[in-house]
Amino acid sequence: MATLEQLAKYVGGELSGLDVGKSDGDIKQVATLDDAQEGQIAFLFDRGYRKFLKITRASAVVLREQDAEGCPVPAIITKDPYLAYAKIAGYLNPSRATSGSIHFSAVVHDKAKVDPTADIAANSVIENDVVIGANVLIGPGCVIGEGAEIDDYTRLVANVTVCHHVSIGKRSLIHPGAVVGSDGFGLARDGAAWVKIPQIGSVTIGDDVEIGANTTIDRGAIKDTIIENGVKLDNQVQVAHNVRIGEHSALAGCVGVAGSATIGKRCMLGGGVGIAGHLEIADDVTITGMSMVTKTIKEAGAYSSGWSVREARQWRRTVARVHRLDSTDNKV
Amino acid sequence: MATLEQLAKYVGGELSGLDVGKSDGDIKQVATLDDAQEGQIAFLFDRGYRKFLKITRASAVVLREQDAEGCPVPAIITKDPYLAYAKIAGYLNPSRATSGSIHFSAVVHDKAKVDPTADIAANSVIENDVVIGANVLIGPGCVIGEGAEIDDYTRLVANVTVCHHVSIGKRSLIHPGAVVGSDGFGLARDGAAWVKIPQIGSVTIGDDVEIGANTTIDRGAIKDTIIENGVKLDNQVQVAHNVRIGEHSALAGCVGVAGSATIGKRCMLGGGVGIAGHLEIADDVTITGMSMVTKTIKEAGAYSSGWSVREARQWRRTVARVHRLDSTDNKV
Amino acid sequence: MATLEQLAKYVGGELSGLDVGKSDGDIKQVATLDDAQEGQIAFLFDRGYRKFLKITRASAVVLREQDAEGCPVPAIITKDPYLAYAKIAGYLNPSRATSGSIHFSAVVHDKAKVDPTADIAANSVIENDVVIGANVLIGPGCVIGEGAEIDDYTRLVANVTVCHHVSIGKRSLIHPGAVVGSDGFGLARDGAAWVKIPQIGSVTIGDDVEIGANTTIDRGAIKDTIIENGVKLDNQVQVAHNVRIGEHSALAGCVGVAGSATIGKRCMLGGGVGIAGHLEIADDVTITGMSMVTKTIKEAGAYSSGWSVREARQWRRTVARVHRLDSTDNKV
Repeated sequence: MATLEQLAKYVGGELSGLDVGKSDGDIKQVATLDDAQEGQIAFLFDRGYRKFLKITRASAVVLREQDAEGCPVPAIITKDPYLAYAKIAGYLNPSRATSGSIHFSAVVHDKAKVDPTADIAANSVIENDVVIGANVLIGPGCVIGEGAEIDDYTRLVANVTVCHHVSIGKRSLIHPGAVVGSDGFGLARDGAAWVKIPQIGSVTIGDDVEIGANTTIDRGAIKDTIIENGVKLDNQVQVAHNVRIGEHSALAGCVGVAGSATIGKRCMLGGGVGIAGHLEIADDVTITGMSMVTKTIKEAGAYSSGWSVREARQWRRTVARVHRLDSTDNKV
Repeated sequence: MATLEQLAKYVGGELSGLDVGKSDGDIKQVATLDDAQEGQIAFLFDRGYRKFLKITRASAVVLREQDAEGCPVPAIITKDPYLAYAKIAGYLNPSRATSGSIHFSAVVHDKAKVDPTADIAANSVIENDVVIGANVLIGPGCVIGEGAEIDDYTRLVANVTVCHHVSIGKRSLIHPGAVVGSDGFGLARDGAAWVKIPQIGSVTIGDDVEIGANTTIDRGAIKDTIIENGVKLDNQVQVAHNVRIGEHSALAGCVGVAGSATIGKRCMLGGGVGIAGHLEIADDVTITGMSMVTKTIKEAGAYSSGWSVREARQWRRTVARVHRLDSTDNKV
Repeated sequence: MATLEQLAKYVGGELSGLDVGKSDGDIKQVATLDDAQEGQIAFLFDRGYRKFLKITRASAVVLREQDAEGCPVPAIITKDPYLAYAKIAGYLNPSRATSGSIHFSAVVHDKAKVDPTADIAANSVIENDVVIGANVLIGPGCVIGEGAEIDDYTRLVANVTVCHHVSIGKRSLIHPGAVVGSDGFGLARDGAAWVKIPQIGSVTIGDDVEIGANTTIDRGAIKDTIIENGVKLDNQVQVAHNVRIGEHSALAGCVGVAGSATIGKRCMLGGGVGIAGHLEIADDVTITGMSMVTKTIKEAGAYSSGWSVREARQWRRTVARVHRLDSTDNKV
């Protein structure tokens, strides 16, 4: 709960239209322009939603200066209403504070060091020599392997597996079903059969990292797999051994990154993108959805290799025509 | 166990050939034509398997009228033997009834409301204010977050995570490792870094929905993610925040649907398909495997953008030829 | 820990240069050429790393004969240093032996048969009629369904779900979050709705199989899904019902194999590959990353259908040019 004044100050915006429409009561929650009720604040960041501004019943609205004219309710004026939305939603919906409780059904090894402010939820398992920092939340059903370290304010929602000796920084957030520190896929051929290569490296996760549901991050073969500060991984992402992902890069759902690939800082990878092993991607690279990267990318910019659907019969004709290109070529 | 007569009645088929081959004993199980034994019933829905009809040792066979001639065993005649297979297999293999037992190792919050007919299996966790309906099965290792509601006859097999305030309808089935209600991937840029957008919406799952192993469904940013009645999701599917999937649509393995996409009713998405965010797909749309959809599809029909393999050297030549199209174009 | 002599013997290599550089002390661990310290052994299998050979501080190095000249430390000469790396790393990092302990928090059914040498870790669940072999490790949070059998020396790391009646061979290794034996995606249309086909088959996993984190393997509709000996599956792989994967085939991360597909022996599937259902892939087939296979492949060899990224504007131009091929065709 907050006053509009507090929120404006929090996001560095300017108040406007306090004389119109609604009383300046407490703001309790964020909402969409069309659904907002008394006590809620809405946001106009997509011009397509401008039509809802006139009819909104929100107690206040956050918008750009150029959209403010005729706004029927009090407003916070800001250059980036989307960022203001993120900040205000966070302000009004803080993470629940930990209470320093260890559920009786949790299994915590004698030699684990758990900060007294941390919460360990039901049926979770904390193995030997684990270090759990201040205000950490280990949700129900999580398993933290021997020697792993989880730093202050990091939260594991539920059923997360953190394997032995993995290190996770501060204020990170790991969603259900994620696995951090599974063995890398290291194999050597011995005739027809494979010999497993023990994966003796680990995983180092920085601060403010988010790891999506059922995402997997493998431990390194010899050195560590490294996820730098501020990296955001969506659900079902696969990060192979010895990958390094640079600060503030964001990988959308179902991305796969093969072994020893290095991704730069502030990169954005669309859903389903595949990155081959042993290559480098520069800082500030954007890869559009379902594209494949098989060579090093040295320059910032946007890259693509995805095909978008056509009506199936037309697509089959196009494919056939492409396959005929070779013969055409030969004739010419 | 059932008599052939009972099964014919159950699927609305006609009995035929009761005078041939085998005695009309009880049918205990379904089987394939080539493997069936005494007491089993087999099905001919694929003409390619017609050769096995003559030699089958099944006690009975289900087939179309046009395939019935010369069938050496009693038969049920039906227009859709595949549907009859589904129904008869279901009849002979009912889900185990619940017994109203809560395993001593399960952790059930005092304020959770668990119907006395529901089963809560070992090492599962039921949090505060959860509502569990009649004959619900919560398998071992599941975590049901605060305030979630699971309606009658729904079954969670094992190690499923249902996050706080998620709502699941009747007779749904959720396979191991699935996660329902994880945070959507909502981020706003603040300079180089990302600010997390709290995901205060939830997930609403309808009746008769099936959710595959390790499939993930994110909660909405403000409003709910919605999975309508009868939707079937295979394994490793990723459904992002605020997606809506219409009744009876079926998504095969590894499909990814990005945020705020709307998929119509009775759609069929092949394995590995990717759907971009903020678009709409009409009812009765089929997308073939590994295709990508980046624009709204307004008409029912089949759509594709996948390429199927060629011998690698030939493929490389084709790719090179395609990339030369631009220059060719310029020359012409 | 081992002497260099022991290691040379173990990998069938020849000792060389024992008179140079370092004392022949015990080797404790493997390392990279550039990071290795006293007591560690490094490997030269990639010519690109040859520059580090001169400056390595490893106690010993494994390399090919042609790379041995000028090696500043004792060496093991072998034809395949990568295989030697796998073997030596395995020798120096053996799996921890089981101790025959069942954690007090594990729930083991009275009628389960657990070999006295097996370990059952915290908060795992072993259901009715399960058979656990000698020296098996069931890690924390695992669920083993009714009637499943897990043979000697197989290890389940943590939070693994093995469904009812699944059979797993000897010395296999299953990583966290993997699901073996979930229902196949079997549905029959009944008007607009779907009727579920009970999946009464199971899964048979051979010996020496590795199953990656969050990988899913569905049980068969009637007969079993079969993973033959020595198969290696990376993370997030999806194997549908009634698939058969031949001996020693290796599937990289995010591969999806649709129902009833048969993959031969010694095949290698790159990351993100999709295999359609009801087809066969011959032995010794390699499929490059993100390719799709929609028809039977009868001949060994390499196959592709993936596109690698270009700068986005160029790619859009290429795509547009390809779509214009049809009209071009018509004109000509």
